[in-house]
Amino acid sequence: MWGGRFAAGPDAVLEAINASIDFDKRLYAQDIRGSKAHVAMLAAQGIVTKADAKAISEGLDAILKEIEAGSFTFTRALEDIHLNIEARLTERIGAAGGRLHTARSRNDQVATDIRLWVRDTIDDLDVMLADLQKALAEKATEHAATVMPGFTHLQSAQPVTFGHHLLAYVEMIGRDRGRFRDARARLNESPLGAAALAGTSFPIDRQATAKALGFARPMANSLDAVSSRDFALEVMAAASIAATHLSRFAEEIVIWSTPQFGFVTLSDAFTTGSSIMPQKKNPDAAELVRGKSGRVIGHLIGLLMVMKGLPLAYSKDMQEDKEGLFDALDTLALTVAAMTGMVLDMVPNGQAMKRAAGAGYATATDLADWLVRELGLPFREAHHVTGKLVGMAVERSVPLERLTLDDMQSAEPRITDAVFDVLGVTKSVKSRTSYGGTAPKNVKAEAKRWLKQLAKG
Amino acid sequence: MWGGRFAAGPDAVLEAINASIDFDKRLYAQDIRGSKAHVAMLAAQGIVTKADAKAISEGLDAILKEIEAGSFTFTRALEDIHLNIEARLTERIGAAGGRLHTARSRNDQVATDIRLWVRDTIDDLDVMLADLQKALAEKATEHAATVMPGFTHLQSAQPVTFGHHLLAYVEMIGRDRGRFRDARARLNESPLGAAALAGTSFPIDRQATAKALGFARPMANSLDAVSSRDFALEVMAAASIAATHLSRFAEEIVIWSTPQFGFVTLSDAFTTGSSIMPQKKNPDAAELVRGKSGRVIGHLIGLLMVMKGLPLAYSKDMQEDKEGLFDALDTLALTVAAMTGMVLDMVPNGQAMKRAAGAGYATATDLADWLVRELGLPFREAHHVTGKLVGMAVERSVPLERLTLDDMQSAEPRITDAVFDVLGVTKSVKSRTSYGGTAPKNVKAEAKRWLKQLAKG
Amino acid sequence: MWGGRFAAGPDAVLEAINASIDFDKRLYAQDIRGSKAHVAMLAAQGIVTKADAKAISEGLDAILKEIEAGSFTFTRALEDIHLNIEARLTERIGAAGGRLHTARSRNDQVATDIRLWVRDTIDDLDVMLADLQKALAEKATEHAATVMPGFTHLQSAQPVTFGHHLLAYVEMIGRDRGRFRDARARLNESPLGAAALAGTSFPIDRQATAKALGFARPMANSLDAVSSRDFALEVMAAASIAATHLSRFAEEIVIWSTPQFGFVTLSDAFTTGSSIMPQKKNPDAAELVRGKSGRVIGHLIGLLMVMKGLPLAYSKDMQEDKEGLFDALDTLALTVAAMTGMVLDMVPNGQAMKRAAGAGYATATDLADWLVRELGLPFREAHHVTGKLVGMAVERSVPLERLTLDDMQSAEPRITDAVFDVLGVTKSVKSRTSYGGTAPKNVKAEAKRWLKQLAKG
Amino acid sequence: MWGGRFAAGPDAVLEAINASIDFDKRLYAQDIRGSKAHVAMLAAQGIVTKADAKAISEGLDAILKEIEAGSFTFTRALEDIHLNIEARLTERIGAAGGRLHTARSRNDQVATDIRLWVRDTIDDLDVMLADLQKALAEKATEHAATVMPGFTHLQSAQPVTFGHHLLAYVEMIGRDRGRFRDARARLNESPLGAAALAGTSFPIDRQATAKALGFARPMANSLDAVSSRDFALEVMAAASIAATHLSRFAEEIVIWSTPQFGFVTLSDAFTTGSSIMPQKKNPDAAELVRGKSGRVIGHLIGLLMVMKGLPLAYSKDMQEDKEGLFDALDTLALTVAAMTGMVLDMVPNGQAMKRAAGAGYATATDLADWLVRELGLPFREAHHVTGKLVGMAVERSVPLERLTLDDMQSAEPRITDAVFDVLGVTKSVKSRTSYGGTAPKNVKAEAKRWLKQLAKG
Repeated sequence: MWGGRFAAGPDAVLEAINASIDFDKRLYAQDIRGSKAHVAMLAAQGIVTKADAKAISEGLDAILKEIEAGSFTFTRALEDIHLNIEARLTERIGAAGGRLHTARSRNDQVATDIRLWVRDTIDDLDVMLADLQKALAEKATEHAATVMPGFTHLQSAQPVTFGHHLLAYVEMIGRDRGRFRDARARLNESPLGAAALAGTSFPIDRQATAKALGFARPMANSLDAVSSRDFALEVMAAASIAATHLSRFAEEIVIWSTPQFGFVTLSDAFTTGSSIMPQKKNPDAAELVRGKSGRVIGHLIGLLMVMKGLPLAYSKDMQEDKEGLFDALDTLALTVAAMTGMVLDMVPNGQAMKRAAGAGYATATDLADWLVRELGLPFREAHHVTGKLVGMAVERSVPLERLTLDDMQSAEPRITDAVFDVLGVTKSVKSRTSYGGTAPKNVKAEAKRWLKQLAKG
Repeated sequence: MWGGRFAAGPDAVLEAINASIDFDKRLYAQDIRGSKAHVAMLAAQGIVTKADAKAISEGLDAILKEIEAGSFTFTRALEDIHLNIEARLTERIGAAGGRLHTARSRNDQVATDIRLWVRDTIDDLDVMLADLQKALAEKATEHAATVMPGFTHLQSAQPVTFGHHLLAYVEMIGRDRGRFRDARARLNESPLGAAALAGTSFPIDRQATAKALGFARPMANSLDAVSSRDFALEVMAAASIAATHLSRFAEEIVIWSTPQFGFVTLSDAFTTGSSIMPQKKNPDAAELVRGKSGRVIGHLIGLLMVMKGLPLAYSKDMQEDKEGLFDALDTLALTVAAMTGMVLDMVPNGQAMKRAAGAGYATATDLADWLVRELGLPFREAHHVTGKLVGMAVERSVPLERLTLDDMQSAEPRITDAVFDVLGVTKSVKSRTSYGGTAPKNVKAEAKRWLKQLAKG
Repeated sequence: MWGGRFAAGPDAVLEAINASIDFDKRLYAQDIRGSKAHVAMLAAQGIVTKADAKAISEGLDAILKEIEAGSFTFTRALEDIHLNIEARLTERIGAAGGRLHTARSRNDQVATDIRLWVRDTIDDLDVMLADLQKALAEKATEHAATVMPGFTHLQSAQPVTFGHHLLAYVEMIGRDRGRFRDARARLNESPLGAAALAGTSFPIDRQATAKALGFARPMANSLDAVSSRDFALEVMAAASIAATHLSRFAEEIVIWSTPQFGFVTLSDAFTTGSSIMPQKKNPDAAELVRGKSGRVIGHLIGLLMVMKGLPLAYSKDMQEDKEGLFDALDTLALTVAAMTGMVLDMVPNGQAMKRAAGAGYATATDLADWLVRELGLPFREAHHVTGKLVGMAVERSVPLERLTLDDMQSAEPRITDAVFDVLGVTKSVKSRTSYGGTAPKNVKAEAKRWLKQLAKG
Repeated sequence: MWGGRFAAGPDAVLEAINASIDFDKRLYAQDIRGSKAHVAMLAAQGIVTKADAKAISEGLDAILKEIEAGSFTFTRALEDIHLNIEARLTERIGAAGGRLHTARSRNDQVATDIRLWVRDTIDDLDVMLADLQKALAEKATEHAATVMPGFTHLQSAQPVTFGHHLLAYVEMIGRDRGRFRDARARLNESPLGAAALAGTSFPIDRQATAKALGFARPMANSLDAVSSRDFALEVMAAASIAATHLSRFAEEIVIWSTPQFGFVTLSDAFTTGSSIMPQKKNPDAAELVRGKSGRVIGHLIGLLMVMKGLPLAYSKDMQEDKEGLFDALDTLALTVAAMTGMVLDMVPNGQAMKRAAGAGYATATDLADWLVRELGLPFREAHHVTGKLVGMAVERSVPLERLTLDDMQSAEPRITDAVFDVLGVTKSVKSRTSYGGTAPKNVKAEAKRWLKQLAKG
């Protein structure tokens, strides 16, 4: 098998390990954009003639069309996207094509291309993540008062609302977007004109190309410009963290979809069935969202490993920066899309949630807080009294609110009827009015705040 | 062995796996700071009496002193730093101690403690990283014109200056600091008052505690506040990327210190010798800086793995967030300190560097650029001519500048005497005046800019 | 803070980064064992005198006792365990102590120490893993016929038995033990006598020291002997895979312990309660077992990163091999102990499991198989008929076995009364008699086979 | 962009995230092999008729030909390789095709397919790794006496031979092969017949299918059979460790190829040049081998992350097991091929190596050992004397062997003329005759032993 594959000898091996065109062709649009900015600047600076610049620029436009029409032939012998395009350019416009590469190198060119690609991709991801936030915030508005158990250790701890739970993810994704935004700002500098590694003696104008390409500024050190890939690492780290957030929600969806929990029903669009059990809905999309976090994180590690201990400036190891980066961001985009779809279609089962919220004496904290607040018991003593009452209720297999006032007073004589006001789950969530708390009016207000902000874009 | 270790039975196992006091005691100062802010707010809101608040606050001050004096006894039976301190508080001030925990929970308390710790640590790291930048920028000023080979593929490609090379790392570390700064801003929100997970019915003032603790604002969702650890992941990712930068420079130092390269001499303070070869200087510190990147990255992966697929809110798995985080940031601090020391003491060998810079026809690009610039040859044709001339020089085993004008003209008749102006390495670096290029005057200006900025702090 | 820490200057930094005694002191017993074997060989070969060898050997014995009694003073100035012991030896027995290091180096010495430590640790782990298998197999014997849902996608798919489920983990752990066993065999070679890296001109007998230390043979290449850490990586990879297995079971325990599932009850020894909800049992130990997989895997990545791209022979980076290795195996041991305890104490709730097993039309496959087996329907057609019948049952909200024969025949006229024999969950599991299937008699036989094998040790 | 991609709505998203045919079609040969074994068994057991079995088997043969001829149309709507093939089978042979899936499920089917694929791939890799060992051992034979510096800390420490250095890698790769061999033995069990997860009530013969497919035995637990992927993790861990070995050698090649070291010359087949510097040889293949270790390790982490915390039995997350596994092993194969080619073509520069070996007082250890051996000095004292003599030589800038006997005796009067016998690098390596030492006769013998063993296959 391998023997066969590499039977053609060393050249086949080198080509197989060396050529990047199979994956870097994805950068064609960015490559052409960069080349057009470069040649326009060369002409403005008098380094090439206006006529040559025009021929080159039009040639590049034509090539862009060829590629988008699928009529461009990529060849491995020309190694990468840069040489493939330049060769075709010279084929089309003749020797003038050979002037495009003046005062630059593939080293600054590829760094420019990837930054442009990442920037575009972050912008796309930001829209997608905002859509997910919107879907969550809308569902949260609708379910601001839908009571469900708040879990610790996956054990019901205190009642919360479904809307409140969803808004927790809106917050997380908000920070994810912040990370991408910060990464974008940091990477938005132009390597173009760093040339091979040392800058150039041509009177180029790096400010001009930076501006033309939408970069905030040119990078200040030519060695750094061609050697650094921290921008890719940072973006992949942001993607890894976002994927972790999605994996957590996906896990919850998988658990909530079990007949045992029965908290939500997913739509057919995001589940698969069984030819034999037509009622069955396997939460495939949620499972894949959960699993694919591994993929994103694996790519991050891969590139950290590549960059570890690599001397400046360009080393060929750095060609390994692309495939993982592409796949990490593609994967994140796909999982965000899947999650957004799941959220839009998800139908919570309010009854099941409320029943579960009330089980397990989840309002014991409310009772203890009442004892502190109304009777002035120290917190730790209030807990002790509450423990006794819960024990009593467990023994009789009744919920807390079914204990009598006498029962209550046997543990603490000062308890009054008013205590029953805090023992129901609905009352419990209503009472949690502290900032950030789960009270429905808080949830509604927060959801509204987010939707307003998201509407601004 | 293990049998012995756990012979005491299940309780010993649970204690061993469960207790966190051995490592979370490190958070004692943050924990006390948080508690003091909390109780002051409780008093201000009338939830506890001023007298109780005073007793609690003074008790906490006293405990802080005990811990710092080493006279505090931590016990595993009390599990964690929170219970160790609270138990001691009650021991000191009696039942009032039991009022401190009103309207909070260990869940929001620990989240607050870690955020405070991380914030403090980032501030320390920022100073250390700035010191490293300063050391680099000062050395760069001194060696703005010291010629060395610029490498690609670890092969000499074009001459650069040592100062330029050092400034590349100043840029990288500048972005590292930016990442920490962004992470700091994002994490600087207060979880305190989120309570167990749902908020509380006590009339607390989260704005007040947030402000007292220097947080920009309280976190907006109580579930998010106790469940999220993306701030730790982000900080560890920033540390991993910074560690990767350091590993690259460390690798260069190891290579540069070989007799074969002989580019730099390290001081005794950062090398180890041999009892048998007194002249030997092993670059131990550089090797350890390089290797410890693995440790930092390992911790990042560890926590990503912990958080993957974890349902909200608090799960005990999250107790695994601390040790790796502490060690990752300690390790980064140690390696930054070591690197700063190495840079301060490092003595470059200008002669060896210059000799190496001139080898390998490293000014061939300068020749080609001259042909383009002066004779108007297209870039690709200029390369062709240059290749012929280098081939000629290789054949005669002489450097490019030793070819005669006749030789030159045999390849391209229009070449003039002026060509010899660009063939020396010193002339080459001087000519690279494009923005970000390696020309000594650029390097000097950049170093100055950085030193000015660093002086501002 | 950091400033303070390293205020003492470069020496403090180098010591902090360089000294390994804080963690490699753990190798003291192995170090002394190795030294004793070495000196005995030196004497046998006439390289040191018998008298010197005796003095050295007795001195080492005395030092061992000092260390175990806690009366040995380790000092960071002496860097590592090797120099700490050697210095103390010379202190005790004078100049003869200086002969111990003849024909060896710290490079082969530390490689020997770690291999011995790993070998010992694997032996301990093997016993612990076997204990866990035994606990599982015994519980499986007891519950060979206890019906529970077999899940796919965490949705009930087909009934299985609890014993069958537990035996799946016995198999996984069996392979984990196999991986450790293979790693042990592969690493059980002696580096001792490789000296610094090149071997030695002394007439040493490496076979003798290898044999004395229980190694299968000396390593065949001195450079490999001091440079390789693949044995540590392999062991950490085996630990990572085992930790992944444990994390899966831990996740199941967490889910099974929810009130919603209610499949198992954990003992107090492996759960924590709430002062306020005395009935609550948080599965802390299971959560920590799940989470700690991240820690183990993080250490594996850390060392892979350290070793990546490291030239031969010894580089100081390799000092980073120990802490992660120690912690990875300690962590695995702790989680195995916790899991064993949980399994021993775990009480399954047969009724809840059986009820869940019957829900969701989990015997639909049995019906389809009956149609294939008894009526000769092609598999795909049988699925179609089954789907229709399940649909009918769903519509009427009854389990499959409550459909009438008429109902059945409306979908496929040839169905007979005999079909009802396969529709109950108990009948379903009994019918799965294929090798490896869940039929109770299979489960019983497999558990017995394992217990017999485990009894052999 | 993403909007465009998923504009078709939820179905497009689910298909994109769910369909595996794009990558699992690679398993077609294994899938068909498994199906043929299954149907032959079904017929032998009387579960399908011989006529149906014949039709199915011939149909599968025809499909295999279609796929290999490139005339088979894979469709995403049919999700995966299993359904693609089964649908085509039914298209070709009618309803009988629907009988193939009797008594199995996609769960055991895919587990069988991957195990078969991994087994095949390991066998291919073993041949390739053996080829690399052979190339190394042959080159080692040739250069058994070629002296080069043995490094610690990348500083010349003691002379070794080039052959000895190469054989260190032969040993490492030998263990890599061992790891793959052990993994192969452990995974060579048949999941087929485990069905969906519980086994089946059909009277299947799992021994027969296991035997037909070359498996050592059927897996003993049906849940384990469909749920476990530790075999994939183990193989990827073995690949990661092997990749680490290759990365180390690659790093050495990169360093050795610098003009500064000049130890080896690579062939054109594994380097790339520069149009401008025709003498330049960039070690691209070595750099890529080094960098691609990150990719392999990233995939390992990815799958560990996927499997972490996954409840039994099949969850859709597990679909993520394939792409990383395929790419990890493909990448390893490619890097092994590249490394083998580099070794075969590599020309060491004996003179440069020998010169470097003699620099830096690399025979100081030989001098110290002579003092111990011939004069009976304790090791530590011998080191002291040697240190003094090296210091003297450093001061005069001469190698050790240029000191006079008088010089020598000034440090230790008992030194005789005989000492000069051990001070040259050639003499040094010759003297290292301890087992595993670098003496040329050892190296020759070891290379011969390996070549003999490799010839056996």
